[in-house]
Amino acid sequence: MIEPLPDLLIEPIVRLALAEDLGRAGDVTAQACIDADATMRVVFATRQAGVVSGLACARLAILALDPKASFEATAADGQSVEAGAVLAKVTGNARAILSAERTALNLMGRLSGVATLTRAYVDRVDGTGARIVDTRKTTPGLRHLEKYAVRCGGGVNHRFGLDDAILIKDNHVAACGGIANALTRARAAAGHLTKIEVEVDSLSQLADALPHGADVIMLDNFTPDDLKKAVALTAGSVVLEASGGVNLQTVRAIAESGVQVISVGALTHSAPVLDIGLDAV
Amino acid sequence: MIEPLPDLLIEPIVRLALAEDLGRAGDVTAQACIDADATMRVVFATRQAGVVSGLACARLAILALDPKASFEATAADGQSVEAGAVLAKVTGNARAILSAERTALNLMGRLSGVATLTRAYVDRVDGTGARIVDTRKTTPGLRHLEKYAVRCGGGVNHRFGLDDAILIKDNHVAACGGIANALTRARAAAGHLTKIEVEVDSLSQLADALPHGADVIMLDNFTPDDLKKAVALTAGSVVLEASGGVNLQTVRAIAESGVQVISVGALTHSAPVLDIGLDAV
Amino acid sequence: MIEPLPDLLIEPIVRLALAEDLGRAGDVTAQACIDADATMRVVFATRQAGVVSGLACARLAILALDPKASFEATAADGQSVEAGAVLAKVTGNARAILSAERTALNLMGRLSGVATLTRAYVDRVDGTGARIVDTRKTTPGLRHLEKYAVRCGGGVNHRFGLDDAILIKDNHVAACGGIANALTRARAAAGHLTKIEVEVDSLSQLADALPHGADVIMLDNFTPDDLKKAVALTAGSVVLEASGGVNLQTVRAIAESGVQVISVGALTHSAPVLDIGLDAV
Amino acid sequence: MIEPLPDLLIEPIVRLALAEDLGRAGDVTAQACIDADATMRVVFATRQAGVVSGLACARLAILALDPKASFEATAADGQSVEAGAVLAKVTGNARAILSAERTALNLMGRLSGVATLTRAYVDRVDGTGARIVDTRKTTPGLRHLEKYAVRCGGGVNHRFGLDDAILIKDNHVAACGGIANALTRARAAAGHLTKIEVEVDSLSQLADALPHGADVIMLDNFTPDDLKKAVALTAGSVVLEASGGVNLQTVRAIAESGVQVISVGALTHSAPVLDIGLDAV
Amino acid sequence: MIEPLPDLLIEPIVRLALAEDLGRAGDVTAQACIDADATMRVVFATRQAGVVSGLACARLAILALDPKASFEATAADGQSVEAGAVLAKVTGNARAILSAERTALNLMGRLSGVATLTRAYVDRVDGTGARIVDTRKTTPGLRHLEKYAVRCGGGVNHRFGLDDAILIKDNHVAACGGIANALTRARAAAGHLTKIEVEVDSLSQLADALPHGADVIMLDNFTPDDLKKAVALTAGSVVLEASGGVNLQTVRAIAESGVQVISVGALTHSAPVLDIGLDAV
Amino acid sequence: MIEPLPDLLIEPIVRLALAEDLGRAGDVTAQACIDADATMRVVFATRQAGVVSGLACARLAILALDPKASFEATAADGQSVEAGAVLAKVTGNARAILSAERTALNLMGRLSGVATLTRAYVDRVDGTGARIVDTRKTTPGLRHLEKYAVRCGGGVNHRFGLDDAILIKDNHVAACGGIANALTRARAAAGHLTKIEVEVDSLSQLADALPHGADVIMLDNFTPDDLKKAVALTAGSVVLEASGGVNLQTVRAIAESGVQVISVGALTHSAPVLDIGLDAV
Repeated sequence: MIEPLPDLLIEPIVRLALAEDLGRAGDVTAQACIDADATMRVVFATRQAGVVSGLACARLAILALDPKASFEATAADGQSVEAGAVLAKVTGNARAILSAERTALNLMGRLSGVATLTRAYVDRVDGTGARIVDTRKTTPGLRHLEKYAVRCGGGVNHRFGLDDAILIKDNHVAACGGIANALTRARAAAGHLTKIEVEVDSLSQLADALPHGADVIMLDNFTPDDLKKAVALTAGSVVLEASGGVNLQTVRAIAESGVQVISVGALTHSAPVLDIGLDAV
Repeated sequence: MIEPLPDLLIEPIVRLALAEDLGRAGDVTAQACIDADATMRVVFATRQAGVVSGLACARLAILALDPKASFEATAADGQSVEAGAVLAKVTGNARAILSAERTALNLMGRLSGVATLTRAYVDRVDGTGARIVDTRKTTPGLRHLEKYAVRCGGGVNHRFGLDDAILIKDNHVAACGGIANALTRARAAAGHLTKIEVEVDSLSQLADALPHGADVIMLDNFTPDDLKKAVALTAGSVVLEASGGVNLQTVRAIAESGVQVISVGALTHSAPVLDIGLDAV
Repeated sequence: MIEPLPDLLIEPIVRLALAEDLGRAGDVTAQACIDADATMRVVFATRQAGVVSGLACARLAILALDPKASFEATAADGQSVEAGAVLAKVTGNARAILSAERTALNLMGRLSGVATLTRAYVDRVDGTGARIVDTRKTTPGLRHLEKYAVRCGGGVNHRFGLDDAILIKDNHVAACGGIANALTRARAAAGHLTKIEVEVDSLSQLADALPHGADVIMLDNFTPDDLKKAVALTAGSVVLEASGGVNLQTVRAIAESGVQVISVGALTHSAPVLDIGLDAV
Repeated sequence: MIEPLPDLLIEPIVRLALAEDLGRAGDVTAQACIDADATMRVVFATRQAGVVSGLACARLAILALDPKASFEATAADGQSVEAGAVLAKVTGNARAILSAERTALNLMGRLSGVATLTRAYVDRVDGTGARIVDTRKTTPGLRHLEKYAVRCGGGVNHRFGLDDAILIKDNHVAACGGIANALTRARAAAGHLTKIEVEVDSLSQLADALPHGADVIMLDNFTPDDLKKAVALTAGSVVLEASGGVNLQTVRAIAESGVQVISVGALTHSAPVLDIGLDAV
Repeated sequence: MIEPLPDLLIEPIVRLALAEDLGRAGDVTAQACIDADATMRVVFATRQAGVVSGLACARLAILALDPKASFEATAADGQSVEAGAVLAKVTGNARAILSAERTALNLMGRLSGVATLTRAYVDRVDGTGARIVDTRKTTPGLRHLEKYAVRCGGGVNHRFGLDDAILIKDNHVAACGGIANALTRARAAAGHLTKIEVEVDSLSQLADALPHGADVIMLDNFTPDDLKKAVALTAGSVVLEASGGVNLQTVRAIAESGVQVISVGALTHSAPVLDIGLDAV
Repeated sequence: MIEPLPDLLIEPIVRLALAEDLGRAGDVTAQACIDADATMRVVFATRQAGVVSGLACARLAILALDPKASFEATAADGQSVEAGAVLAKVTGNARAILSAERTALNLMGRLSGVATLTRAYVDRVDGTGARIVDTRKTTPGLRHLEKYAVRCGGGVNHRFGLDDAILIKDNHVAACGGIANALTRARAAAGHLTKIEVEVDSLSQLADALPHGADVIMLDNFTPDDLKKAVALTAGSVVLEASGGVNLQTVRAIAESGVQVISVGALTHSAPVLDIGLDAV
């Protein structure tokens, strides 16, 4: 089961999105064409198969405009569904529902899209023991929701920001005059709950890094063969993360190299929306 | 040339994104590995061909962390560039640049992705006179930026929100007991600067709508043949918008039907990021 | 009936106003002189005749400080009432009611003032077919509420902001080197749901503008005679808006010229408050 | 000279107002009709005589959109000017100036309207020693600016909110079972820097209040004759504030009664805007 | 009884604190180790004797994460309690309670610490008639809460900010060229509800100040002997405030000098937290 | 050297604090007594010995009110200074400096207080190899600043929030039915950059925990003897953190037990302010 985020972390985004859509005059079409006290029953339903994520966004969007509406989820975040699956049943004020529709769908569709793409990667590496993780290549303002969607798809989260782990990349190594020095400085700065990861781009750089005590080593753009060599070389002494050039075609071979972690930027930066609609019933 | 948005509309997003990434401790890696007063020169460069959008985001991200940095744009929003094109040259505090990097790239990459996909649609309909327009299927909080990116790609904007035009859809028609009644109510409600659009899903519904004075009629999921019949039937008396089932394979045939406007949700809800990187020089 | 704004668009203003009034210590008088658990019954009542607008503001102000209070509206926004009319009956915590009183009255009084003045203009042009519309001369932060109040008074809204229609004024014409060029540039920039209005200050400038396809032409400071000539000249081919020098003495003659739209800045920039009070019962 | 507010207290309002006006697409007219790099020279000039207030709002609005613009104030807040007076000269980016124009004028016009009306009251009581003070009947969100405008007009500020003095009104007296008890509770609650004011509506209630040590007594809706009696009765032992039924016709007689303070809600709730325009030069 | 602050002034702080603690992923420990639908019963209990303040913060923190939780206060703000006292009983969702725990304790512990220290000072001056007051040396963002806590401890509030009274200090006197001139300028600027206080640092400066009509004179760093002389000299004609060098050892002697007010910065800038815990039951 | 936080993370707090202090009318004393264009030179100077932290807060407070002021730091965050040490020299507008004074001092004094107390603990354990770390017992809204101050004092940071590491406490263990199960669930949930800590309250519970792979074990309220046994038992296989009952008297013995980490809530919840003042020169 997917552990839900507190509404407290979701509601500000939902209200922002509604305000953005309602603008300065509200939904002028609903005001013109729908009686103020009309009610309706609708369902949120998928138009294509995928993994659900973001039902709370839909719920909060509806309730923000009609606090008395009933919202009954008929699926759960993290669940794989077929096209046509009913995700939630809603009864409430007709204007409120129609005015909240796009906000609900924009959020739920985007998050379900991330979850669906993540699941595809996770399925592709099934049985290898490799974990699919995300990156910081997220939508500004939505990082915590998109990382939640990755969890819905069966993925695992990388850093949430620049502050919750140390990740030494090429520019940092260059600035420190070498990987050994960079790791030494990082270890001196790190608290007892801060892990340290370092990026290497070759087996020789991996060899340089190994003695200096990183918790994780990111193997950047390694071939599957070199990944295997890295796995052999490190023999479980450190967590290895493959990164770069990962797509649905390449990910299986990468996973079979034995690395524990494969990070995929596309999970959040290029996932197409999952097509979900709202149907009157 | 693309008309820029005022910084006033961009800066809040950039600062929000930086705060989201810096978290509660800032960039712990840069703090550990980069001297506080080190400077560096970098370029933003494309890793693939595309259309640029969002240079102001990159500029504002850098300047938010180092107000004294120099940021020289070497390309312009709306410009088509090859892989490897240098978009901007930056000199400034090394920590600031590295800490702002991801925020700058996340925004510029996303917006350039939207612009690039838009341009692909625009190019596909070249010579037909049809305009490619976006929808309200945008990222919560980023609508004005994504609609700007559509303009960078040569597209045109549909409504910005629920409040700046009337768009009567099937649920509104149902609630009003028919298209004639819906349009009558809409005209009564509309101000002298508010246009009215109505969605129809068949030629016979189009015929019902025609006498009632909409400014625009959206033809939902019409076949190219039916689109042509609609164009013939209306004979220029109303603007026609094709919607639904539009993709890069189908858009040319749709455009050749003679409709003036083709709306494409994918421009903003499913555009993959344009791969842009930051390179030390 | 007046279509209500969603509470979502009103509540932030109400809470801001309450916070502004409560300051850093709350209502020190109520704390000193009213028992914490005392309750009271009050009514909101007019001290002069007018048109009601903003009942939701009063309701939300009371409920923000006492969520369990009962608020029963006994009039409706848009309704004309006599002096002494009871607009709402409230029962709840006495401190909460007294602390919310000024916020409730400041908002409801101001909006009702706008509605009342608007109604005066609307009544003055009764039977002529002319519509009274507002301008962007609104109170910073309250535009959407004041434009709602205009609707309550029977008026119609002009643009909500700089972004939801094109309105070409003298400075734009000057910058473009003439009205024809300005309209050509505007048409090229406008989306299919964006209307274009142009301001002219003489009949000859009107003649210049006519061939270039504006949706609306604003006749700035025309005499009633010139307005009639403009109506004759355009013969219904374009919407005409009279602007400038409009007051309760002049508006009837302006309306009788046959223009469709008369815009009045005073509706929002100079409407005196409607005197409403809160009475214990 | 009027003591300026810190920009820190003004800028958030200005930026809010600009964002409200620019909406989601910015100034589409300026984008269409004005070249991005065009510059212009303009002046802010009055169209009628009055008292200036809010020049900082205009300055901050212009600079928010063009930080490099030059803004030269040629008048000062608090200054009385004739129709046609030039208040400020501005040179800068043409789009920025035209996009900021309405925000600048809305704020400066409103504040100057408040200052002008205040000055009219102040002039009317000239030589009597009475001070004209405002009330809490201000525009939500703009209280500190409107109270500043009152100072620009020569008025003095009453409470800024519910928290910076105790003001016992009829409902508080009723809740306490009498004026003596209310004042006793108030004195017990008040800190050493908190003044206490009590409202009375008759000479006999004034006599009840006098022994209980209020700093100020508000005489609500007293006739000029009763005001004189109150002045005689109190003989300078307490500050007297006349309130209710104050307008430009009645204020002189009220002031001549000898009260020290006259509060006027109309200063902020019903001041018409001062007509100011922006002219290209 | 302590008069409560409206929730409206507390809730934003509580939600800010929760968001700060939940970060971008929420409470990962509770998500990992506590079932989503588990419930628990807990009590908030003191670990040491003190004065309670901030129960509303605890209530609002719990309810923000579980709106259906029951929160029963078993003590009241302002109450003196022993170690082990149960302040509130809570039943609700286990994750919500554990996630809100630290926010609730951080606020309630801090405020109770301020109240407890204040009570110690108040008790020390018992019977002297002197009041213990706070200063503006408060925690940024929490001033209104900390001043509330001072009231819970039996103290009285000094100014809430720079705007609600005039307090002339040495730098102001120096800028005005003397205390007489400073007080003259202050009286001219002060409204009828604004009190004026002036700081003096010697008996001779006190003598200079006396004729110029301050409401309060602050005696800065006076010895007890000089305080007594000041009391004798002023003979009740002005309120005297002792300030500087006040601690629990010195405060009694200061109070016995006969000053009415003793201000103590330590109440808010150096109060240790009151140790409160949350125990499962 | 202490690595500075980006101004972006400090400025919002400073501006919030200034707005809180300026209220709705600004600094009425400075407005009354200081000429608007007067300038002054001041220094920030310590009144007692301590460790400096928060100079950037003082700088940003001054510059927020006078952007042209010069602020020259003459000490550095993290530096130990004597009483009377000059921390910064400032020249600028006199009103701005006096209005910003309290905000600057409140922040710098508080943070320097935290740094000074931290340094006292750090010095007390000198030579033992133990690190002093903070907790989440911080001031709501100021966590990132207070944790920065801990770093200035030579301490190290524990978790920044509930989301950046897993910390299993007694309630979590109880909910999971034992420590083994809790750790198993935690490991399943943790990403590859998330460390896991578990709290134990006895040597036998420590023995239970050891086989299950925590990164850190918190020894809650262990005696120094038991701490030594724990160190012996674990033999470096896991990081040990002592917690509970830590004060300046006990910390040395705790450190000599050989634990690597000692967490001290008092660093942030009970540090007295460092007395810093602003002196005109």
